[in-house]
Amino acid sequence: MLAAHYAGNRTMTVAHADPAPPGPGQVQIAVAYNGICGTDLHILSGHMDARVDVPAVIGHEMSGTVAALGDGVDGRSVGDPVTVMPLAWDGTCPACRAGNSHICQNLDFVGIDSPGALQGRWNVDAGLLVPLPASLSLKHAALVEPTAVAVHDVRRAELEPGQKAVVIGGGPIGVLIAAVARSFGGEVVVIELDPKRRETAAGLGFTVLDPREDTLAWVEEWTGGAGADVVFEVSGAAAAVLGAVDYAKVRGTLVVVAIHPEPRPVNLQRVFWRELRLLGARVYQRDDFDTAVALLDTGAIPADALITRTVPLRDVQSAFDALTGGEAMKILIDVQAGQETA
Amino acid sequence: MLAAHYAGNRTMTVAHADPAPPGPGQVQIAVAYNGICGTDLHILSGHMDARVDVPAVIGHEMSGTVAALGDGVDGRSVGDPVTVMPLAWDGTCPACRAGNSHICQNLDFVGIDSPGALQGRWNVDAGLLVPLPASLSLKHAALVEPTAVAVHDVRRAELEPGQKAVVIGGGPIGVLIAAVARSFGGEVVVIELDPKRRETAAGLGFTVLDPREDTLAWVEEWTGGAGADVVFEVSGAAAAVLGAVDYAKVRGTLVVVAIHPEPRPVNLQRVFWRELRLLGARVYQRDDFDTAVALLDTGAIPADALITRTVPLRDVQSAFDALTGGEAMKILIDVQAGQETA
Ligand SMILES: [Zn+2]
Ligand SMILES: [Zn+2]
Repeated sequence: MLAAHYAGNRTMTVAHADPAPPGPGQVQIAVAYNGICGTDLHILSGHMDARVDVPAVIGHEMSGTVAALGDGVDGRSVGDPVTVMPLAWDGTCPACRAGNSHICQNLDFVGIDSPGALQGRWNVDAGLLVPLPASLSLKHAALVEPTAVAVHDVRRAELEPGQKAVVIGGGPIGVLIAAVARSFGGEVVVIELDPKRRETAAGLGFTVLDPREDTLAWVEEWTGGAGADVVFEVSGAAAAVLGAVDYAKVRGTLVVVAIHPEPRPVNLQRVFWRELRLLGARVYQRDDFDTAVALLDTGAIPADALITRTVPLRDVQSAFDALTGGEAMKILIDVQAGQETA
Repeated sequence: MLAAHYAGNRTMTVAHADPAPPGPGQVQIAVAYNGICGTDLHILSGHMDARVDVPAVIGHEMSGTVAALGDGVDGRSVGDPVTVMPLAWDGTCPACRAGNSHICQNLDFVGIDSPGALQGRWNVDAGLLVPLPASLSLKHAALVEPTAVAVHDVRRAELEPGQKAVVIGGGPIGVLIAAVARSFGGEVVVIELDPKRRETAAGLGFTVLDPREDTLAWVEEWTGGAGADVVFEVSGAAAAVLGAVDYAKVRGTLVVVAIHPEPRPVNLQRVFWRELRLLGARVYQRDDFDTAVALLDTGAIPADALITRTVPLRDVQSAFDALTGGEAMKILIDVQAGQETA
């Protein structure tokens, strides 16, 4: 089979490898599609070299079909369409014991801390499988994982039907959050600097603002002087963090979705004055995955608009480069393309 | 009567004034004691000159007795011991309509935005009165307002019995939060730089740490590797904000109690990683006042330890100066002292 490795030095290499049989309790998946996300780009940039053993097969936004079952695996059949919730927890740390195993203090994120999906055959623990309905295409199903992130973010915010949400950042996660919030009954505005991304979001029916406009006055008027119920900070920009609290109503919620590698100045005076709530939101829980599958299956998530293109595994480097350059929303890797001839 | 005014220029002046009769719906209070708080010091420093009309009678941590009733006031009698919840809201803004009138978008904080308690006779709307039990001394009752702040902070944190709380800052509000958290069944550690304040807190039975120790390792061990359930940031120091999130468990809560006039660097990576919750907490609601009265009445709040001394109204400037210099926890002004001879 062919497998794509992060080889250090901003480089992805594609190489032959012999597929291993699934171990006891494992399932071997024929990976169909794998989306590339911000964390993968982060790995490529070298920022996560302390965590990733080079060369590493990465990838965790995927869909596929069951190819083989290891010993002791019940309830799965060869050919079943599946995706994977790529979290392995220890079950024993204080976070796990308190019911927060999804952010276990010793979490193994599959595809970062252990081998990922950018390979023709991928062995994972059977417990990580999430079954897919036959009606959901495997291309769309590659968006289940990032959609689950968005579902988790919106649930964490406790967004209620009729509430108003500001999404700062109109990239793939921002648009997914906007779509999930809308499907939950929220009214959404997306703030995005890039005109192309604004156009994409507007094409999906979202109200879109350019951050260089007077967005604050707009939100004030939109909310009758109250401020937004929920603000999602998805941009990762320091200036966005500083301004984000100004959109929120008294006792409103700001969800910190983006990764901020450096401490960011936060207007704690505003947090205090309006008794705001700032919430961290990371990955997802099983319910979020199930909801993501359902939302993609019903068409509530604009999957086609998010998938800029699909490329064969051998072009993985070009896909990373295009995404790093901001030239695409989501690129799927067709992992089976070229496997037969490899 | 005598009244103390903030006169600008870091100056408090004491001057004669004719007491006005209470207007319709008002009660005239003979103010017994008035505590000086951080906000009062902030006013004296000139930082709030945009909000305070000079000369201004300030003061809002008080106790007293009803001296006269205006037209249409029922249910109060001359001589009743009372304190005042010094918040006047408009009842019509989005925050009020959503049930958060205590942080009304047009809040009038009595004693800042309108005249306060540092005067022999003080007229306030009857609705602001909070009755006091006869068993509670008027000196201790002057601590009801700051205790209500602490009750609000602990309630906002949703601290449950048996949970562990870190209080960063062992000044008056820090000690009050620690005492309230303990009375709610929490286990508390106080982190304080000043040796004298550490000694005071230790004398009240609290575990106290010097921030120059390895407080993080201590909290890790104390909590069995989990981290604290709740962290209260009461110090106002930028470094404390940056470190505060490190004490918190997965899904733990950080309550921002202190005033931070400048945006502060916050470790959003940690907020994200542990799915922390940062909460602003401002003033109090009526329930918090009632609980504060009860806690002071039962002795759960170490009132005597917090009251460094009591001085007559004519010495108000020296009290402000001593507090600005950090030489005292809480100084009460005896507002009636000297009134008869004035
Ligand atoms: Zn764990
Ligand atoms: Zn209001």
